[in-house]
This record gives sequence, structure tokens and C-alpha cells, in this order.
Amino acid sequence: MPPPRTAATFAPPVMEARRWLDGVSFAPERPLINVSQAAPVDPPPHALRQVMAEVALTRDDAHLYGPVLGLPELRAELADQWSDGYGGAIRPDQVGITSGCNQAFAAAIATLCAEGDEVIVPTPWYFNHKMWLDMSGVSAVPLTTGADMRPDADQAAALITPRTRAIALVSPNNPAGVEYPPALLRAFMELARSRGIALILDETYRDFHAQSGAPHDLFTDPQWHDTLIHLYSFSKAYRLTGHRVGAIVCAQDRLAEVEKFLDTVAICPAQLGQHAALWGMRNLKQWLAGERDEILSRRAAIEAGFPDLAERGWRLLGVGAYFAYLAHPFSLSSADLAPRLVREAGVLCLPGTMFCPPDDPSGRGQLRIAFANLDRDGIGTLFERLKGFAG
Amino acid sequence: MPPPRTAATFAPPVMEARRWLDGVSFAPERPLINVSQAAPVDPPPHALRQVMAEVALTRDDAHLYGPVLGLPELRAELADQWSDGYGGAIRPDQVGITSGCNQAFAAAIATLCAEGDEVIVPTPWYFNHKMWLDMSGVSAVPLTTGADMRPDADQAAALITPRTRAIALVSPNNPAGVEYPPALLRAFMELARSRGIALILDETYRDFHAQSGAPHDLFTDPQWHDTLIHLYSFSKAYRLTGHRVGAIVCAQDRLAEVEKFLDTVAICPAQLGQHAALWGMRNLKQWLAGERDEILSRRAAIEAGFPDLAERGWRLLGVGAYFAYLAHPFSLSSADLAPRLVREAGVLCLPGTMFCPPDDPSGRGQLRIAFANLDRDGIGTLFERLKGFAG
Repeated sequence: MPPPRTAATFAPPVMEARRWLDGVSFAPERPLINVSQAAPVDPPPHALRQVMAEVALTRDDAHLYGPVLGLPELRAELADQWSDGYGGAIRPDQVGITSGCNQAFAAAIATLCAEGDEVIVPTPWYFNHKMWLDMSGVSAVPLTTGADMRPDADQAAALITPRTRAIALVSPNNPAGVEYPPALLRAFMELARSRGIALILDETYRDFHAQSGAPHDLFTDPQWHDTLIHLYSFSKAYRLTGHRVGAIVCAQDRLAEVEKFLDTVAICPAQLGQHAALWGMRNLKQWLAGERDEILSRRAAIEAGFPDLAERGWRLLGVGAYFAYLAHPFSLSSADLAPRLVREAGVLCLPGTMFCPPDDPSGRGQLRIAFANLDRDGIGTLFERLKGFAG
Repeated sequence: MPPPRTAATFAPPVMEARRWLDGVSFAPERPLINVSQAAPVDPPPHALRQVMAEVALTRDDAHLYGPVLGLPELRAELADQWSDGYGGAIRPDQVGITSGCNQAFAAAIATLCAEGDEVIVPTPWYFNHKMWLDMSGVSAVPLTTGADMRPDADQAAALITPRTRAIALVSPNNPAGVEYPPALLRAFMELARSRGIALILDETYRDFHAQSGAPHDLFTDPQWHDTLIHLYSFSKAYRLTGHRVGAIVCAQDRLAEVEKFLDTVAICPAQLGQHAALWGMRNLKQWLAGERDEILSRRAAIEAGFPDLAERGWRLLGVGAYFAYLAHPFSLSSADLAPRLVREAGVLCLPGTMFCPPDDPSGRGQLRIAFANLDRDGIGTLFERLKGFAG
């Protein structure tokens, strides 16, 4: 008898990492540096919180079921801003709002795949993508990346089989931090189209991209929707992680299939979060630009401080958006190193093994640092601690 | 090539029914009577809205990710109240909070079933259950009910095969309104246990049960968790449909599997809704008792007024919680009757065909009336219109 779907996958890595903290205490003068989570630790700006409070008090309909695919105003706003920002034509009926970006990915896969199908995913991968594929009976086919942490479209082409339904990319990448260049994304789009499969592009971290302007030109193609499925999250930009709002942008007929999935697994996205996201999109552009500047300055601090760590044998494999992806100089596996870093260096980060297939040894030499919540001083302290750790 | 998962199921019935309204106008003196939706149309009490506003303004953590399985206080409160109410022992670590009760069902199935497995479901069934089973590659095995709309455990026993993983019951039932008696539920529990399968019991409408006190004794069994998976929704009790809060109560080790699913499809339930549910559980007992009284009085109005309709050949197959389930006297299928009722009688309700397998003719003679939003006068008007409809 086949095991049930959840038995086909692993426990949530973030929960496992939290357990490393059990029974460990940190001196007040040397508190834990938690760089495990890719999420803001501060609440949204006060004005946005006031809007949520007002909506709760004054809008009756914000307490009732909304449309399965989200508030029409939010879908229209996203379509407008994306059309502007990416220089393409995106209609509101090509936009669905989801309860977070993970759910957008899950919905996309449900519209693409049956049992036994395959999706090509660059490694290191985002573990929730791998978990959903496992639970869907879909093989995540690993596409290894080289020293630059970038996937290669020709290499991907060789992995396509009759069961391949999609290639799933995340840019800026979680966990590796790298921003895929427009030409790379274009090559994947052409590959996917030529082989009749979908290109899923998760742009959760796009608001913190180092490049100003559109990060790619895929939406300028009038036929983008025959191949591209774009995913987005409002959680990082507006600090709405606790409210669960994401989006999927795809062909209208695919969205009708997405609707079946969302109706059954969520009925509708939480309403207050949608109102918050809408207000944020309309009113927090300047604020978000400041947030991005701050993240970019932290990224610069990572790059500026790294030579010190490099002297001890560390390597910076990728840096961008919320993440730095490091190669450590020790012989032990990152799976053992990461819990030791908690106890001996006061640093909580996730090991590369959590982002790689079990049979891929590269993750053992890697660590993900989610640096977004560390200011420049904090980054300095982190580097001191890593330097001081002797393995 | 097998079709993708969403192609294995149908479009959300509620959305289809809404389309019957397109282009139809209703005279001001004869507005539409909408009895299609099993959801409150009024917002929650003002005090609860104030609590949500306050939490949004003052609690930073309510804007950030929470635990995958929900707020510990809410899990503990539910465990306490359920232990009291059902006379059993339910621990907080046997309670998970979900983004609505549909998601709780989806999670339960993911922990139980693989591709090709079977779940026994009484007909008429709740369509979102059927949709999720379809999308999971699981066969929904119909268990027909008789004139009393109650499933029979012996009949269910005959449907069990080596691939059967669970029996899924909804009581009070959606769509049929019937409340399953404790002995019936006990018989299903014993059947499930004796055959090593799970009993999923969706009690979304339990707060409107006509019987005071516990609706069954399943939780008094100290080993309830070896078989029972209980599902609940905060949406109806506290009018929180727009905030997506439900619950699953099951064995702790199953909950670890549930956590994998929820982490991947939702990350965490929306925080404000959880705070609202917690405050509601602690402060709205009296209010909820009044809500229940009102629903029971509306149910009484259905029963009192029905003889008039019965004279025209209508039959009341079941009534309870939010629903009356009717047999209509016309020769046409309910699938054709329901859109005509919109245009000719100004009544929107769902046809029995939406709750039955396509090859089961019984749904053609049936209609679901979700009467919870109609007061006694409204029920009188509804009956007048149905009486006046000549088929």
C-alpha cells in the first residue's frame, strides 16, 4: 500500500531549525543572531495598521467571504502596476490573489501536473517547492547550478522528458541570493515554450532586486501567458507575513483551473490582508523604495565585509535580496555545523542540506544567511562570530 | 498523458450559481431571495471588530508569521472547551488551526491517502470534499442515504476495500441538514476502528445543533485519536468567513503530518482571524447561544410552514443547522430548475445535482435551501414564491 501524500515528504525545515534552540541559553551581552528566517521581524508601517483597523471597524464585507480569486480592486491594481513595471500587457483577469505565495505555487502545480509528472527545479531549491511536489506525486528533477549559482537553459533542456510539465525558477533566488539576468530568464522562457511546458517564475523577492526597473522582459512578449506563470508575495514588501497574501499571474483559462484549487483549499484569501496589500500598493511606494535601499546597503555590507571571512576559507556563492549563500571551510556537513553554530557561535542559520536533494553532496558545504533583519552593525557581529568559529 | 489534477474536478458550484444572476434584474418590491450560500451575511458583533482593530494597532506579532499549527492560546482554548463540551480528553497538541475548515479536510486527506486510494462519502455530499478528493487522485466512493438522509454503517462496511482510507461524515449535514444521532456516529466510529481506517467528522455546523449538550460521545473514548479526525470552522459561529479560521483535532502524530501540508500550502493561518476566534471563544458564548436560538427558530418556521408546500407535492427531506433539503415536485432536473427559479421566482438556491455523482439521478429531484440568513418573514415569502412556481 502506498504511503499517504504527507509521508512522501520531510518535516518543515524552519520548524526543525527552531528546535535547535531548545535548551540553549544566550548571554545578554551575546544574544542569538537569527538569520534563519526569510521574513521581516518588524510590523508594517503604522499608517497601514491604521487602515487595517479602520477596515475591520467600518467595512462589513471585509468580514465575509470574498471572491475565490481575490478582491477585484487588488487584482486590477496589480495588473496595472505590473503592466507598467514590466512594460507588458497584463489584464486583471490574468491575476489571482492567493493566501501567500506558497499557495500560488501549489495552485500552479495542481493546474499543470498529474501523478508521476516532473518539474525541473534548480538546486539548491526552495524547500517548500520540493515539499509540495513530493506531496503532489510529482518528481522534482534537480538542475544543478555551477559556481555562479545560476541554472543553465541548455542543461535544463537535456532533463526534459515526456512527463516534464514545467521549469520552476525563483529570482532573486531563495536560498542562493542570485538575481537571474534577463537573458537567462529569456532563454528559459524560450526553452519552455519550444517544448510546450510552463515556466513558473517566483518573484517573491523582486522588490529588493539590485537592478532598478524591470528585472526581465518576459511580460513584453504579447504571448507571455502561453508559457509564463508568475508568482508574487505581498509579505515581504509590506511586512504582511501574518496576513497571507500572494498572487499568481497567468493565462485566464489557467486561472479558471486555479480557482478550483483555491476554492477547495482556501475558499478566499483573508480579507483584511488583501485590503492592506491594496493600500500598500497605492500608498507605500516611497516607503518601499526606502526599504529596498536599506536591504541593498546591508547587501553591500555583506560584500564589503566578506574578504575577512574569505581569509578563513569561507566563500560567498551568492548574495541578493534577503540572502547570502556561503560555502563554509569545515569538513563537517552543514547539517551538523548549523546546530553547532547555534550553541557555539550564537548564530541560527539554515544548512545547505535543507535546500538540496539527499544525494547531492554540495549542500553539505553550504549555509544560507537570511540577512535582511541584520543592520550593518549586526552583519559585522555575525561575521566576527563566524570568523571566531574554528570548526 | 494524464490530465493535471485540477482537470480531474469540476468548477466551484457557488461560482456557477452566481452566474445565473447575470443579466437578471429583480423588482425593488420583489428582491432576490438568496438561499444559495451557507454563510452569515452579517459582520461579527461590534465588540469583536474592535478587538481585531486593537490587535492590528497594538500587537506587532499579529502582523508576522505565526506557528504553522496556529496560535498556542487558541489551540489550548479549543482543547479546553472541547474537552468540557464533549466530555473527553483533548490536549492542545492534538489541535491544529487551519485557514478554514476546507483546508482542514484537505490536510486530513493528505495525511491519509495516496493516489488511487478511496474515501467513503455519503451522498448527497459536500462538493468541496468531492473536489479535493478528485484533485488528490482519491476516489470518493458514494454511500447512498435513504429517505431519512442518514448513512448506514452496515452499508458503508460493504463498500470498504483494501484501498479505503477513511469515511468522511458531515454532521449537522451539508447539504441535507440532518443531524446524525450519537448512535449512528458511534456505529461509524466502531466500523472505522475495526477496519483500521479513519473516521473524519466535519462539525462545521455543530454550534447550531438542535440538541443541547454534546452531539455525540466519540471523544469520551480515551482512544478516540486512533480513529477520529474532527474538523471545525470558526466562520459560522463568530461570522468570520472572511478571515479563514478552522481547526483539525486528531492524534498528535497525525498533526505532525498535517504540519507538513499546512506549512507548504499556507505557512500559517491569518493572525487577525485567529485572535478574533480566540476572543470569540472566550467572550461570545452568550451571544452565540442567541444566534443558535435564532437559527432554531428559523428551522421551526421551515417545519411549521412546510405543510403548505407539501400540498403542492414538495417534500422536506432534511432540516437542521443552516439547511433545508427539499424534494421538488417537477419532472425537470434541479440542474434546470434552479436557474429557472432565479428568473421566474426570484429564488437562488443550489440544485441537488451539485451534491451528487453525475450518475446518481436522485439529485435531480432535490434542492438545497441555505435558510440561515432568512428570518421568519423571509421564510414565509420564500415558501410563497415556491408555491407560486408552477414548474
